[in-house]
Amino acid sequence: MDTSAIMGALWIIIAGILVFFMQAGFTLVETGFTRSKNAGNIIMKNLMDLIVGSIGFWAVGYGIMYGSDLIAGGYLGRMSPSDQGYFFFSADDYYNLFFQTVFAATAATIVSGAVAGRTKFSTYIIFSLIMTTIIYPISGSWYWPFDDDAWLNTLGFVDFAGSSVVHSVGGWAALVGAIVVGPRIGKYKDGVSQAIPGHNILLGALGVMILWLGWFGFNGGSQLAFGSEEDVIAVGSILITTNLAAASGAAAALFYTWLRYGQPDISMTLNGALAGLVCITAGCAAVTPGAAVIMGLIAGVIVVMSITFIDEKLKIDDPVGAVSVHGVCGALGTLLVGVFATDGGLINGGGFDLLGVQAIGVLAYGLWAVVLSFIVFTILKLTIGVRVSEKEEIEGLDKAEHGIGVFNE
Amino acid sequence: MDTSAIMGALWIIIAGILVFFMQAGFTLVETGFTRSKNAGNIIMKNLMDLIVGSIGFWAVGYGIMYGSDLIAGGYLGRMSPSDQGYFFFSADDYYNLFFQTVFAATAATIVSGAVAGRTKFSTYIIFSLIMTTIIYPISGSWYWPFDDDAWLNTLGFVDFAGSSVVHSVGGWAALVGAIVVGPRIGKYKDGVSQAIPGHNILLGALGVMILWLGWFGFNGGSQLAFGSEEDVIAVGSILITTNLAAASGAAAALFYTWLRYGQPDISMTLNGALAGLVCITAGCAAVTPGAAVIMGLIAGVIVVMSITFIDEKLKIDDPVGAVSVHGVCGALGTLLVGVFATDGGLINGGGFDLLGVQAIGVLAYGLWAVVLSFIVFTILKLTIGVRVSEKEEIEGLDKAEHGIGVFNE
Amino acid sequence: MDTSAIMGALWIIIAGILVFFMQAGFTLVETGFTRSKNAGNIIMKNLMDLIVGSIGFWAVGYGIMYGSDLIAGGYLGRMSPSDQGYFFFSADDYYNLFFQTVFAATAATIVSGAVAGRTKFSTYIIFSLIMTTIIYPISGSWYWPFDDDAWLNTLGFVDFAGSSVVHSVGGWAALVGAIVVGPRIGKYKDGVSQAIPGHNILLGALGVMILWLGWFGFNGGSQLAFGSEEDVIAVGSILITTNLAAASGAAAALFYTWLRYGQPDISMTLNGALAGLVCITAGCAAVTPGAAVIMGLIAGVIVVMSITFIDEKLKIDDPVGAVSVHGVCGALGTLLVGVFATDGGLINGGGFDLLGVQAIGVLAYGLWAVVLSFIVFTILKLTIGVRVSEKEEIEGLDKAEHGIGVFNE
Repeated sequence: MDTSAIMGALWIIIAGILVFFMQAGFTLVETGFTRSKNAGNIIMKNLMDLIVGSIGFWAVGYGIMYGSDLIAGGYLGRMSPSDQGYFFFSADDYYNLFFQTVFAATAATIVSGAVAGRTKFSTYIIFSLIMTTIIYPISGSWYWPFDDDAWLNTLGFVDFAGSSVVHSVGGWAALVGAIVVGPRIGKYKDGVSQAIPGHNILLGALGVMILWLGWFGFNGGSQLAFGSEEDVIAVGSILITTNLAAASGAAAALFYTWLRYGQPDISMTLNGALAGLVCITAGCAAVTPGAAVIMGLIAGVIVVMSITFIDEKLKIDDPVGAVSVHGVCGALGTLLVGVFATDGGLINGGGFDLLGVQAIGVLAYGLWAVVLSFIVFTILKLTIGVRVSEKEEIEGLDKAEHGIGVFNE
Repeated sequence: MDTSAIMGALWIIIAGILVFFMQAGFTLVETGFTRSKNAGNIIMKNLMDLIVGSIGFWAVGYGIMYGSDLIAGGYLGRMSPSDQGYFFFSADDYYNLFFQTVFAATAATIVSGAVAGRTKFSTYIIFSLIMTTIIYPISGSWYWPFDDDAWLNTLGFVDFAGSSVVHSVGGWAALVGAIVVGPRIGKYKDGVSQAIPGHNILLGALGVMILWLGWFGFNGGSQLAFGSEEDVIAVGSILITTNLAAASGAAAALFYTWLRYGQPDISMTLNGALAGLVCITAGCAAVTPGAAVIMGLIAGVIVVMSITFIDEKLKIDDPVGAVSVHGVCGALGTLLVGVFATDGGLINGGGFDLLGVQAIGVLAYGLWAVVLSFIVFTILKLTIGVRVSEKEEIEGLDKAEHGIGVFNE
Repeated sequence: MDTSAIMGALWIIIAGILVFFMQAGFTLVETGFTRSKNAGNIIMKNLMDLIVGSIGFWAVGYGIMYGSDLIAGGYLGRMSPSDQGYFFFSADDYYNLFFQTVFAATAATIVSGAVAGRTKFSTYIIFSLIMTTIIYPISGSWYWPFDDDAWLNTLGFVDFAGSSVVHSVGGWAALVGAIVVGPRIGKYKDGVSQAIPGHNILLGALGVMILWLGWFGFNGGSQLAFGSEEDVIAVGSILITTNLAAASGAAAALFYTWLRYGQPDISMTLNGALAGLVCITAGCAAVTPGAAVIMGLIAGVIVVMSITFIDEKLKIDDPVGAVSVHGVCGALGTLLVGVFATDGGLINGGGFDLLGVQAIGVLAYGLWAVVLSFIVFTILKLTIGVRVSEKEEIEGLDKAEHGIGVFNE
């Protein structure tokens, strides 16, 4: 291992630690944007994502995603070679496992916000476990090992840090979860959506800032190296595109809501920053700073329209806008790589032009996540049930499922 | 780019990420130390600083601060060379842009605390934009490019990480803002200052700790290199002087208020830590740990006296003490370099002794920031206005300007 | 200083910055898990730990712990060589001082949670000062300089990042403090423990996540190098064992409380994560990921049993469970190294087998911390007193000792 490789490992480790911190950001966003009576339950769900993300991904998921022995030609994942243990990953590059573990935990966590306030804790645990050990690793293996066995990679698909691989998979699973579980009691009265304000937008804002911070690790670390001038230029450029997209996403949501509603909306502005971040994740290493600003502006407007549309027209109750932020803007960002990539328009290895390949990837990840999570959530609904009782929901999940109130004197 | 330079870039990137996190710290300090009815508005102002800091500094400010073509002999900034775009910075060293961007955002954010609770959001946006694209970059160009075109650099001025360049410029602009906007309703009754306690000192304390954390990047990263034994010694020493000054600043404020008021004051102790940090920023690489402790102790006492004086005698309403922390202690720290620098007393390049040069720098940054922000705030006052209506202020800016309450059930 | 050493210094600095952030985590855990009327006092105690930890450890503690001139054969610490100043450490490796400083502050901070809500502020300051300048550095010198003068090191003791050296010393001092100070008013009615719920478990959870984050620096940084393939493998492995132990600790507490009480307990789950982290700290570099999971599971169950036992049977009032988390699980983790270390069972230099040596270390640190803190707390009780008055305690320490309420409108 030469100096370049060691420096790369150092950067990956630091980036992984930053991505780990995103769990705190998600917890604050999800609790802050929802009611206080369910805050403890959301904490527990996020902890559960971290628990199963850490243990499950090491024990099973990592092998399925990065193993060398293909299952069903690689369409259903892989297996680790025997010298690394078929399960329970064991090799020298634990720092890679660490970096990938925190990504897996992110994919799982996205779902918890969309099903907040009415979902059974036991049900959520099982879904989270399946998400991090099967759903996410299998579709991840289609692309991220960046090898010839990864069919989306051979097509020329570009999703540098995971707009689709991580965020849209999480976002579409969140959509299915929100549909199967159904809206919170009182969310729709006579078919009209009722605003249920978050209990602490300040903590939500802190969460968004922590996510923004962690995203520098998420996107920058995905360079997976820091040993050459090329890496320095790449990571520097990634930090700038990432930051600009977040800023312009927030700006777009701020001014769009100002124009549309007469006042700049705080929650939407915060979601606009996240939308810009999700949107730039696929192309952060492939677009110019100017393109990043445009992509952020598009994402910041789209996320507001999407949140409103899903809430008011589709009448799907997604308390924190996770579907719009991660699903819609993840797909959007993946597609926009086909428009803005500096080498966009080139015919890629698979014979498609880039925009077409990106669309295939978006569809593949969308279909996979929707079908798999629909199967899992439906089985859970038919067996142990997905919802708490009406009495428990009105009382609040903290009291009902954990026997305590999170906020006291 | 050799290994040393790559390691330097890695450190600058990590330090920049830490400095970015200071935005979360500022948001928590400014919201925690003020009333709950304005928390959302402060969040939005801090987001705005990040938005215009990110986009504006990339598009305009960085070129003005670090370009090679001088404007008015460099006294009014610079322009980027054409191959980097006159505007919209474009070159390989994006990691430098990233590091400088988060500094620019810091300078802007300092102002928002001082004008909290009564300033129009639209007015603040315009000021923040001018701050990050014109006021801060022009005066920054006088020193920080560290080249022969920077007149304060040629004089031998020492402001390693920006006690004056960043903090005092922000602090004096905050002073002007607080004066032009005027005190909050109810702040002065019959000429006597009324205490308006912060709504959540615990979140304010978390903010201070995040700022303290970020300052290791702010000061340590300003070494701008990490490739030699000299760099290791320098950065190690900077972390120690920075940490000791923060600790002794907090200690001084704690014991001084204990002696003066009979009880150790929590808000003042937290401000004492910040005062020590601002004070050591100019000289963190030039003084011994022992001198850092003394500087922190001085700053911790001065900040308490200054906050009280500005509040009670000058009757200027600065809700979070931003003028005292950043303006007064920024100037103080810059001057104290002339007393405590290990090579202090030497005749420098410009023919002045160090303390004299430091005083010139303090005056130049003070004059610039006061005059420019006075012009901008006055024009804003005469045109779109700087204050919300009395009714809106009493109702709270969250309801009045954003239509929501940040804290709900 | 070659490239390897420079990279090592960079990692130590970054790790130290992460460990520094743990202070924010401790503050949030201790305030969140206790009542709101004492939050400001806890903030001040944590700031005090940082103040005396920073200044005291630089001025005195570091020399006692890492000096080369032995005091009483090294059993009572050391002195710095004269060229580094007997006191007020002065040498080129300030980055090592920084890393060790944040560890010392951690040891002190552990105590504040256990004595929260009834301890005099002035008393706490004196204890914290003695802790960071005498108690912790002397016992630390028995092992961590890793040289022939460190008697536990020559025996073959293994405590990589400080399950005993830092956490159990802090935990046993916390135990003594809680006993000497006595329970909060109303904690035991007719000999039956009364639950006193924390005022904000959400902020407590954020604190736990910040601690979990900081622990990657705490354990990973303790490799004290990052310049070879061996270091990369070691640090990568440490991050995985650390993360797995935290996750399995949380899982164990979650499922154990679910089984025992019928509902998964939020506070216990959070403490389970901390228990896993404390437990793995000694052996994080010596055990396999599988062993880390088992150790975390054990710690997660033990910590629940221990908290309940200390609270209900021993009737010692430890508001945040600091004794169980840091004392009990610190000792547990140190012992489990003797069971799970991959080279466990080998006869070490001192002629003991590893488990025996670990037991000696556990006893030595326990005895030292208990005896020394008992002496200090008892002297303080007999002189200036350790407790606030009944009236002050019921009113809350924020009002009584600092004259303000932390939470306002």
